[in-house]
Amino acid sequence: MIRGNDPILLTPGPLTTSLATKQAMLRDWGSWDAAFNRITASLCRDLVDIVGGGDDFVCVPLQGSGTFAVEAAIGNVVPKTGKLLVPNNGAYCARIVKICRYLGRAIVDLPVPEDQPVTGAVVAAALDADPGITHVAQVHCETGAGVLNDLTGVAQVCKARGKGLIVDAMSSFAALPIDVARVPFDALVAASGKCLEGAPGMGFVILRKTVLEHCAGNAHSLAMDLHDQYVYMQKTTQWRFTPPTHVVAALRAAVDQFKDEGGQPARLARYTDNCRTLIDGMRALGFRTYLPDAVQAPIIVTFHAPADPAYRFKPFYEAARDRGYILYPGKLTQVETFRVGCIGAIDANEMRNVASAVAQVLADLGWSARGGSDARRAA
Amino acid sequence: MIRGNDPILLTPGPLTTSLATKQAMLRDWGSWDAAFNRITASLCRDLVDIVGGGDDFVCVPLQGSGTFAVEAAIGNVVPKTGKLLVPNNGAYCARIVKICRYLGRAIVDLPVPEDQPVTGAVVAAALDADPGITHVAQVHCETGAGVLNDLTGVAQVCKARGKGLIVDAMSSFAALPIDVARVPFDALVAASGKCLEGAPGMGFVILRKTVLEHCAGNAHSLAMDLHDQYVYMQKTTQWRFTPPTHVVAALRAAVDQFKDEGGQPARLARYTDNCRTLIDGMRALGFRTYLPDAVQAPIIVTFHAPADPAYRFKPFYEAARDRGYILYPGKLTQVETFRVGCIGAIDANEMRNVASAVAQVLADLGWSARGGSDARRAA
Repeated sequence: MIRGNDPILLTPGPLTTSLATKQAMLRDWGSWDAAFNRITASLCRDLVDIVGGGDDFVCVPLQGSGTFAVEAAIGNVVPKTGKLLVPNNGAYCARIVKICRYLGRAIVDLPVPEDQPVTGAVVAAALDADPGITHVAQVHCETGAGVLNDLTGVAQVCKARGKGLIVDAMSSFAALPIDVARVPFDALVAASGKCLEGAPGMGFVILRKTVLEHCAGNAHSLAMDLHDQYVYMQKTTQWRFTPPTHVVAALRAAVDQFKDEGGQPARLARYTDNCRTLIDGMRALGFRTYLPDAVQAPIIVTFHAPADPAYRFKPFYEAARDRGYILYPGKLTQVETFRVGCIGAIDANEMRNVASAVAQVLADLGWSARGGSDARRAA
Repeated sequence: MIRGNDPILLTPGPLTTSLATKQAMLRDWGSWDAAFNRITASLCRDLVDIVGGGDDFVCVPLQGSGTFAVEAAIGNVVPKTGKLLVPNNGAYCARIVKICRYLGRAIVDLPVPEDQPVTGAVVAAALDADPGITHVAQVHCETGAGVLNDLTGVAQVCKARGKGLIVDAMSSFAALPIDVARVPFDALVAASGKCLEGAPGMGFVILRKTVLEHCAGNAHSLAMDLHDQYVYMQKTTQWRFTPPTHVVAALRAAVDQFKDEGGQPARLARYTDNCRTLIDGMRALGFRTYLPDAVQAPIIVTFHAPADPAYRFKPFYEAARDRGYILYPGKLTQVETFRVGCIGAIDANEMRNVASAVAQVLADLGWSARGGSDARRAA
């Protein structure tokens, strides 16, 4: 796997991209030019293909980070009179709740413990309790802790009850299997810089055509009006406003590599191997994972912080970075943790190396990983 | 001036960037890492310096195209009870009007002919006629036709009457002089991929601190909440949501080159030379500019289409592109025109070359430039 000599980003996006992906940015494209617009069109087709969307779904790209695309999906798909259920087991679910407050959309914020997956049964009970709910917003992999929610179960419940479903597949798209035949949805949101292994700078929403056609007039924002973006692109092949041309070209290169690798099954196999190797290596050092293996998505792993009372994330992070690995802080409020991503243009060798680097960091800092928060609780 | 071997983009962004700027994208940055956040902070300081903003102004970067930043500026700075005057002499002014309709902000859409600059007197009369107006949104260089509006005059009128001023300096920032001492404003909007000669993918808003401090709660959108972005950045040094890391790194490289070149005066001198050389070369072929020289900004030039009745933009564009130059379509409704940009990592040699290429294109297609729309009117 050819990269440059950058530190390895073990973060859930931006992540480490291949050199071929970065090299695609060494060219300036005219946003009005047919050659560039063919790239956009081919990307949109390929992204719809990843979920088996056929002719019933379209992909609408959007400038900005993934959160821009999540906000756009909610603003376009949920009418002003709609009501959204948000099963909430982490930071990215909480962000959807926040978006709805800005947009003035009615919500039901359904708390779920952050170490447990959202299931179809939980969603079914909430829908039955409040018939006014029109849509469900489901985060697929909640990277706050790294939990894999039961998207298929939730989608089947939504379908059976005739509720719209918006999927935040930011950190799962292209790695975990999502097929519209088993996971029917209205809209699914992801971005360039996650498991597709592109550069960050654009999101996209895959929408059921019959849903999108009814979105005119819903959007709270010109820039985020997906219906308007779609209609304009159909007419002109162009983006409405200046696209991030280099990022789009990098994503084209990244998706080519994704297809060459063998698509989603191959990517999942590599990430699963990365995750397994990482967890094995870290457990051998005495670290404990926050989640049980059964609900752990192979995207990002939350570890309990070393038990040593002197532990602070900052020096730990800096020492690991100086050894070439960028770790990620924890995002849990109750427990001291840190996170390590398994995604990006990296393989199991890197995961073995990161465990070695962490071992050296602990030795340098004079800390022990053993005990974890058990030791703390006992103390 | 070292570039790659791409076709030259004579478009007002995306434009041709230097090879050094593109090479800055050959590295992956962690958005949480201090090294990256130092880049963001240094960029924001440099962008404020370009308008002489000192300690009274701050720069808030935003993911997405320039239009996202324009929408964010309006949504944040104009309170829901405000009323915005939009002196409207072209497509980008019209876009601001459209944004206000989405945001539910009251507006006065003041028509100004698209071949004439907006002046302080025009704005003063409109403000006097409607004391309910709280803010003015002024496009500096209206690239629809290429007109340079009298920003200083408008700013002085706003200041004298105590009205807020939002400047859309998308296509002028870093090339035309804007100093807060002579052009007092509340907010000024520009983007990475215009006269700073970076890659497209981020905008930014330079705000007067005392104005920004009163923006909390105004925004219609989480993603576009500049106040929230600013407060979070002050606290953490980080962007709230994944930044377009490669684009940010490219902008850092581009601004370094901007400073090395001699800053805004040097850039203006180069663009002025480009513009002069282009117009001279095209006039020698028989083309006529749409605007009189007195109101022509050295950013993008609108030419009347060749008089030949067989003229169509598409084959003209394609033939020029095949000779290495990407032209831009006209954006006027009443007159058949095309546009040629003078900005980007290009110099007068390229402008001589584009005139030669256009001469060859006309010869290949058997068209004459002479006559222009005069001939058409006479017909």
